[in-house]
Amino acid sequence: MSLSKVQLKLITSLLQKKYRKKHNLFMVEGIKGVQEFLNSKFEFFQLLTSDASIFLEVENRIVISENDLKKISNLKTPNKVVALFRIPEEDIIVNNGLIVALDEVNDPGNLGTIIRLCDWFGIDQLICSKNTVDCFNPKVVQASMGSLTRVSIIYTDLDKYLQQTKLPKFATIMDGENIYKTKLPKEGIIIMGNEANGIRSEILKLVTNKITIPRFGEFQKTESLNVATATAIVLNEFKRNS
Amino acid sequence: MSLSKVQLKLITSLLQKKYRKKHNLFMVEGIKGVQEFLNSKFEFFQLLTSDASIFLEVENRIVISENDLKKISNLKTPNKVVALFRIPEEDIIVNNGLIVALDEVNDPGNLGTIIRLCDWFGIDQLICSKNTVDCFNPKVVQASMGSLTRVSIIYTDLDKYLQQTKLPKFATIMDGENIYKTKLPKEGIIIMGNEANGIRSEILKLVTNKITIPRFGEFQKTESLNVATATAIVLNEFKRNS
Repeated sequence: MSLSKVQLKLITSLLQKKYRKKHNLFMVEGIKGVQEFLNSKFEFFQLLTSDASIFLEVENRIVISENDLKKISNLKTPNKVVALFRIPEEDIIVNNGLIVALDEVNDPGNLGTIIRLCDWFGIDQLICSKNTVDCFNPKVVQASMGSLTRVSIIYTDLDKYLQQTKLPKFATIMDGENIYKTKLPKEGIIIMGNEANGIRSEILKLVTNKITIPRFGEFQKTESLNVATATAIVLNEFKRNS
Repeated sequence: MSLSKVQLKLITSLLQKKYRKKHNLFMVEGIKGVQEFLNSKFEFFQLLTSDASIFLEVENRIVISENDLKKISNLKTPNKVVALFRIPEEDIIVNNGLIVALDEVNDPGNLGTIIRLCDWFGIDQLICSKNTVDCFNPKVVQASMGSLTRVSIIYTDLDKYLQQTKLPKFATIMDGENIYKTKLPKEGIIIMGNEANGIRSEILKLVTNKITIPRFGEFQKTESLNVATATAIVLNEFKRNS
């Protein structure tokens, strides 16, 4: 079966956030990723595959040509299947445990990696400033490798949220307390900032604990860690003794 | 001044490893990156810029049109300058301290991030299997953010090297010893594997210490960490008490 022009237009429009909002749909690619979303709480909408022998049990499944798959895929090498799911209603923030909060993280690969890290370290809630990249961006979905089905992601006014919450607020900066020598609590908010500019000064004012990952290089030093690798190290420090 | 066809062809050919080898050149983009390489031990060859007001002190500098810059740039938004440097002779492996060894890491972004991590954690030597992505790939140069000028990267027959060296060899696998409870030495080789397949079995046979980063998620679990974030956590564990 061939994709109609209308269907093609709908699916390719989902690359853009405004059309994802309008249609309340996002896309997942690849056999493994689609399987994970089918097994999750996410509401399934439609599946398109170039392989007539797979996902036979799925209703609303359309077999399409390799050529049509290429047209709707965001991957260099499309992997047999694209599925559409409903964007769920956002959860409500539960103010306990460890929470990761992102201030204007722009890169989809970084957000995807951070979602995977939250999943690995058992962080249930990831709070994003309104202008952090959308977690239903296809590149984020791809990079998060199914962890998106297990971590609750909430977009909110980060300034307002941090003003209201009583939890301790941690920020990783260049001249804070050595993270290896800091007693890290089981509850709190770990704030990570934008790739180029770090955490905004308005947010830094609300921070209660400033920490630093020490550098070990001796000569000219690398200026900063990538936000995703810094998140990995900070989460490791918070959880390693828990 | 406009780029000649010959120059254009030379520069764009540097996207491919075989032409980088042939011409013994690689490219660096962006003001900050180019400045870091100019200040390094790397031998400068030529600089091309669309901004006649910058890098005035540099010899062999050509001012080109925005349009020509677009043609030679690998960035979505070219950043004013592309510079060519000579690929240096590889250093010789010095068998002491902590060494990171990569077995078939394919993704340029991952290699770039790992180079940055080595720089941050003061790891002087990064040993790569012959089929690990080339560190002079423009995407690796971009992702490594100048750390490439400070870390010695050596491509070698990894199997043979590991057979010969007496240093302890650490591999991160799914069912090894809990890394948080392992006494980690100041000298040794930290082996990280391919994005999809991990470390090859031939290499695993040579490993002396198998370690694991514990997972904290409770329910369905994320299967693995990205190789760059796993490297971040492992290096952090090796260095935090040093």
